[in-house]
Amino acid sequence: MQDKKNQSSRRKFIQQTAITSVGIMLTNSIQLFANQNSNIMKENIQSKGYAGRNETENLSKWSFERRLFGDSDILIDIKFSGICHSDIHTIKGHWGKQQYPQVPGHEIAGIVSAVGKNVTKFKVGDKAGVGCMVNSCMKCESCKNGEEQHCETTGMVGTYGTPEKSSPTGITQGGYSNNIVVTEHFAIKIPENIDLQFAAPLLCAGITTYSPLMKAKFKKGDKIGVVGIGGLGHMAIKLAVSKGAEVHAFTTSPSKANDIKGFGAKEVIVVNSGEDLKPWFGKMDFMISTVPYAYEMSNYISCVKPYGYFTQVGQPINGELMINNTNMIFNRVNFNGSLIGGIPETQEVMNYCAENKIYPQIQIIKADEINEAWKKVVNKEARYRYVIDAATF
Amino acid sequence: MQDKKNQSSRRKFIQQTAITSVGIMLTNSIQLFANQNSNIMKENIQSKGYAGRNETENLSKWSFERRLFGDSDILIDIKFSGICHSDIHTIKGHWGKQQYPQVPGHEIAGIVSAVGKNVTKFKVGDKAGVGCMVNSCMKCESCKNGEEQHCETTGMVGTYGTPEKSSPTGITQGGYSNNIVVTEHFAIKIPENIDLQFAAPLLCAGITTYSPLMKAKFKKGDKIGVVGIGGLGHMAIKLAVSKGAEVHAFTTSPSKANDIKGFGAKEVIVVNSGEDLKPWFGKMDFMISTVPYAYEMSNYISCVKPYGYFTQVGQPINGELMINNTNMIFNRVNFNGSLIGGIPETQEVMNYCAENKIYPQIQIIKADEINEAWKKVVNKEARYRYVIDAATF
Ligand SMILES: [Zn+2]
Ligand SMILES: [Zn+2]
Ligand SMILES: [Zn+2]
Ligand SMILES: [Zn+2]
Repeated sequence: MQDKKNQSSRRKFIQQTAITSVGIMLTNSIQLFANQNSNIMKENIQSKGYAGRNETENLSKWSFERRLFGDSDILIDIKFSGICHSDIHTIKGHWGKQQYPQVPGHEIAGIVSAVGKNVTKFKVGDKAGVGCMVNSCMKCESCKNGEEQHCETTGMVGTYGTPEKSSPTGITQGGYSNNIVVTEHFAIKIPENIDLQFAAPLLCAGITTYSPLMKAKFKKGDKIGVVGIGGLGHMAIKLAVSKGAEVHAFTTSPSKANDIKGFGAKEVIVVNSGEDLKPWFGKMDFMISTVPYAYEMSNYISCVKPYGYFTQVGQPINGELMINNTNMIFNRVNFNGSLIGGIPETQEVMNYCAENKIYPQIQIIKADEINEAWKKVVNKEARYRYVIDAATF
Repeated sequence: MQDKKNQSSRRKFIQQTAITSVGIMLTNSIQLFANQNSNIMKENIQSKGYAGRNETENLSKWSFERRLFGDSDILIDIKFSGICHSDIHTIKGHWGKQQYPQVPGHEIAGIVSAVGKNVTKFKVGDKAGVGCMVNSCMKCESCKNGEEQHCETTGMVGTYGTPEKSSPTGITQGGYSNNIVVTEHFAIKIPENIDLQFAAPLLCAGITTYSPLMKAKFKKGDKIGVVGIGGLGHMAIKLAVSKGAEVHAFTTSPSKANDIKGFGAKEVIVVNSGEDLKPWFGKMDFMISTVPYAYEMSNYISCVKPYGYFTQVGQPINGELMINNTNMIFNRVNFNGSLIGGIPETQEVMNYCAENKIYPQIQIIKADEINEAWKKVVNKEARYRYVIDAATF
């Protein structure tokens, strides 16, 4: 709740910032300002980026059109775009047949370069982000409750690869590109005090781990196990540590142990076989697994205390995981999955990380390094999030 | 809490009953009384029953010895023994290698024919039952909390097939036989007002469904789905209905529909394919599956409301079930398993069913019909629990 005085001082702040922004924007976005005043509402947005062409080939440069800009939309001049393992699974068809060319990317951070006349949340020059979805019905209970990812009518419209009539390419196109148009509700405000390259990975890796951690309602000192320490896992550690958990990190990569300690984990358990997990059976209050492939899940689940929860956020090929019910009847653990988070909660994790200086550990790459980076992600060589410098598209 | 007057009148009742019991017992158990006074404490108990000989052959008659009778033990003259699908899975080696000969059976009801000198819960002539376990450490937290099935030190000692040093055959031997010796703590009192043939199936089918139903803490009118309507499933329906639930029964056998309505289910959903489940997505407050084989579980799980629970009590071969995490991240259902119930809760369901006249639907068979009955159980032809008349061993 804001009182009048705050509103008034906020308005002043916005005006000042807008003036500053115009200055900042002049070099980059003068063309877009021109567009906004003339053709931006009448012509498809011109974009360029990197697209998958089929299930096997490398991504390559592609110029394409995005949908018409509408009154409730903002146009974002993308500055940084994170690489998520989901991009790889999607483009390679691991989760189902895809339409190509398709531009992946759902960790998008940039600067607002145009706003529709009904937009209230953003102004030109603001920092803005887009995560894993760009639309939903906004009318159903889930949408009204800020769980747009669980929209009950149309389903959420994913940031890339979802059929969309208004898109000139027939599907939504993601963030490995120089700009994106999105209805303002699905854009996240990025606070001034967090750099865009750090903000980008929060929009998937951050929210996807933050949401189930918050649902777990853990207490200070509770033991939280994190399985799989990559882009998502390292954020899970940082977020859980910052909320007071005693974090146990389970990894198959001994070379990550020092980094993991640096993220604040109390214990690093290097797992060579299921036997290595037995000392930890029944010890964790909650566990989250980010492993994006089918794996021997059963002994990990048994590390949770009876009646605790194990949340699988990593999505294996075709989604299929073997669960051993002989273990489940004895370990009494509740297994569930979790899908990203709603827009309000995504804003919450963004604000939380900015305020508490929780930044992903990133490596910035150029567009022509994407294919190499994908190989490293699959080979568990990422340390820990690749972020593409969108100036190189 | 009993007051003095009640204790005194209870003592009188016991004395009277004891006198009556002696009368009842004279014909059957005179030999055991003799034993008790002479050799029962010094010699192994002589038993006869039906045993599995290996993973593939039919069960056949077998005479064997049970362990020495001790001061805290009771000897039960078995009258009825239920056939559970678990007997079949165990003897056929579906859940792991077995030692043979092995007598299955863990739904045991009979009459106490001898009591050790420390026994307080039973007297000769009492009705008594044995379920899925016959011992545990009795010292750990789980045992002290009445969750002996989750004993943290030795693990529970199963009624059959568990290695046991004191057993002359090296393993525990179950209820397809004419008698059993058991420490009194693991025997269940069977109230006078329920017939032994109806009491027997409560000791596995009853408690295995009752326990997770009670944990679900459902409210009157809640929608409960029961998957697989056999021995366990039909008890799940009856128990849930008696507790005020609106039960939806999911079966692959259209021929069971009328019976299922008779058990009190509101809806019978005959499932030919996963498509038949889609109208029920997100509709159930809680679901329990008794299906004892791997099955296409995913769409059943999706019938539960978001954040609800799906409990799998049926145990497939090797315990392995495929779970689809792509569905789990959207349906937001918690999946868990459940293993029988502790001794206090088993006593609770026994008393509850006696008081409320909730009886399993049974078919009584002779010992030489066991092998035929097993085939019918596997072929889903049981209606709904076979109970062996132990007089035919
Ligand atoms: Zn992602
Ligand atoms: Zn919606
Ligand atoms: Zn059973
Ligand atoms: Zn114990």
